[in-house]
Amino acid sequence: MPLQFADRLNNVETSAIRELFKLLGKPGIISFAGGFPDSAMFDVEGLREASQRALTEEPGGALQYGATEGYEPLRTQLAHFMQSKGVKDIDPTGLIVTTGSQQALDLLGKTMISPGDKVIVEGPTFLATIQCFRLYGADLVSAPIDANGVQTDKLEELIKQHKPKLVYLIPTFGNPSGATLSRERRIKVLELAAKYQTLVVEDDPYGDLYFGEAPPPSILALSSEVPGSREWIAHCGSMSKVLSPGLRVGWIIGQPELLAKATMCKQFSDAHTSTFAQATAAQYLKSGRMPATLAKVRQAYGERAQAMGEALKRELGDAIEFTQPKGGLFFWARLTGAGGKVKDAGELAKRAIEKGVAFVPGAPFFAKEPDLSTLRLSFATAGIELIDEGVRRLARGIAS
Amino acid sequence: MPLQFADRLNNVETSAIRELFKLLGKPGIISFAGGFPDSAMFDVEGLREASQRALTEEPGGALQYGATEGYEPLRTQLAHFMQSKGVKDIDPTGLIVTTGSQQALDLLGKTMISPGDKVIVEGPTFLATIQCFRLYGADLVSAPIDANGVQTDKLEELIKQHKPKLVYLIPTFGNPSGATLSRERRIKVLELAAKYQTLVVEDDPYGDLYFGEAPPPSILALSSEVPGSREWIAHCGSMSKVLSPGLRVGWIIGQPELLAKATMCKQFSDAHTSTFAQATAAQYLKSGRMPATLAKVRQAYGERAQAMGEALKRELGDAIEFTQPKGGLFFWARLTGAGGKVKDAGELAKRAIEKGVAFVPGAPFFAKEPDLSTLRLSFATAGIELIDEGVRRLARGIAS
Repeated sequence: MPLQFADRLNNVETSAIRELFKLLGKPGIISFAGGFPDSAMFDVEGLREASQRALTEEPGGALQYGATEGYEPLRTQLAHFMQSKGVKDIDPTGLIVTTGSQQALDLLGKTMISPGDKVIVEGPTFLATIQCFRLYGADLVSAPIDANGVQTDKLEELIKQHKPKLVYLIPTFGNPSGATLSRERRIKVLELAAKYQTLVVEDDPYGDLYFGEAPPPSILALSSEVPGSREWIAHCGSMSKVLSPGLRVGWIIGQPELLAKATMCKQFSDAHTSTFAQATAAQYLKSGRMPATLAKVRQAYGERAQAMGEALKRELGDAIEFTQPKGGLFFWARLTGAGGKVKDAGELAKRAIEKGVAFVPGAPFFAKEPDLSTLRLSFATAGIELIDEGVRRLARGIAS
Repeated sequence: MPLQFADRLNNVETSAIRELFKLLGKPGIISFAGGFPDSAMFDVEGLREASQRALTEEPGGALQYGATEGYEPLRTQLAHFMQSKGVKDIDPTGLIVTTGSQQALDLLGKTMISPGDKVIVEGPTFLATIQCFRLYGADLVSAPIDANGVQTDKLEELIKQHKPKLVYLIPTFGNPSGATLSRERRIKVLELAAKYQTLVVEDDPYGDLYFGEAPPPSILALSSEVPGSREWIAHCGSMSKVLSPGLRVGWIIGQPELLAKATMCKQFSDAHTSTFAQATAAQYLKSGRMPATLAKVRQAYGERAQAMGEALKRELGDAIEFTQPKGGLFFWARLTGAGGKVKDAGELAKRAIEKGVAFVPGAPFFAKEPDLSTLRLSFATAGIELIDEGVRRLARGIAS
């Protein structure tokens, strides 16, 4: 008799992307497939100094068990960080630290979702959110997006129809869409949250990675403009894309009862996030190096996004359409099928691997009704020359 | 309308101990309540060097996203560590790294337990296991223990009666019991696992903390003596009690399919354990400092356990009974009520706080039918003079 696993495992399917990722090991492959920042951007020296200070100034705190809510000096630094991004009414008790923002999603799922509960997500949305919420039995509903993010009129209809447990959005430089919700629609989302008393989760790992003008303030920051909305917003932040994913430091901001329940769940999930990693992150933020680090990654990723956009237009022409991203890590594109060229991104992915370039087809990012012509291209980890060469290989895949 | 949380939160109750812990902030309290190792035991210098080497030798690996299964050099070191403890057939792919062993429990719950499934635990057992498994809907069954650990004849009856999804044991220096399962009973547990094809989870955070003779080999190590048993054993290990809880580094050893499913769940729980913490732990193990660290903590905790045992006998006499622990962090004791003295440990806990000493009453450690006369006393964090003074205060609480 084999082991009998929990029924909830029947709700998830992870093979689609895993099969593709197995091929990434092939020598010489140029990868646009990852969702990683570039390791070469990490401020290793700053993190080394921060970790040393953590072990020198309070070794007990950095190495001992800590509060489930988070290491106090980090909560203080994160509250300052959020204040600097326009969130007015935040103090250290208004947030809890999570083991990366993936854990923030897990805790929100554990805290909020009973089997069968409806949850609205964007179509497309972050793959690991789909699977994370499905493990808690969520019945996902997909809200359509355009270049300005989720379509709020459609979202309102879906909220009325489904009475969801929560609405999950990546409003700024979305993964995989690259889209940014307009300021006007952010206000509309806040009005919907307050009107229908529906929890809206704002996942914001990319908001600091803008290339030119800053994006609109976060939904959380704008909640002060819509009376009664703040208590219906949960905001997930992360150090992963701007500082280091390896620290696994994220956070949730939300109303006190939600944070208390999420903390209780976290107590039995991992007791607390590594205090060593938390103390290192706190020292780093305190050191004042973050603004320079942000300026550096914004410039590097901005140049790469520019290069990829130009290469895609030059090499692929009318075979592909996309909106040039203004931040984040991703292009989201659609194969047009013009001139009888390949329109199925899964098919193109296979051909592209043969030509020596990898990307992720868009289908798995849809909770419902996948658009098979879509694909996601990351420009973060390849330098500009490799981006040019990778896009040329992609063009050869389309032509073949 | 307030937020509507998930139904699973109705399964847990955390107030019993939390109320008590609030009182620990009172100035001058001597605490026997924690489950913490002593911060003064941490090898800060060794960990500082290890973290520096991690950032020097492979900064990308230590700061970037990593494999969900764990950082390869750490898996290699942990496989060596387990081999040194008598586990013969283990290689780096035979274990996955978890965010502390608390996450090992969470992943086992998520992977194995459907709502309503029976799970057998020791009575008493680790409080956070009870709550963790209940969040996944487990119906807990309590198996009685004595000074030699779980009573295997009773355990067999319960397995036959309840057909549990898994059996959870802390066989070595149990929390809270301090008890150690005899070698003979370990073999019996392995026979039961194979005979009834029941997963047995061996949680082993304390096995390295022995004061004199080493305890029997782990159930996992002994599985080579019972044909067909190995695939029914999952073993949870931890760096928390011997090196540093703040790293949040634990691991699960188990059959390949179980590890694959647990890895899938972990992907959506926290993506991976902090690579910075993992790389630091790997460098520490590689440095060869662990044997000296273990020798140091064994000696210090052994002296404290000795001092607490003597003080309890001297100060409390026939008011209390207990078995002198041979390792771990805890005394598990029973109030006898001799001479009309207090027999309810919850009542004593309140009186003790007034006298300036804290401990944890035993009742919350029972999944079913709590023994109200029991209590847990940690000797780990107070020095010998404070142990003596704390026990004198406890005696005044009993006398009052």
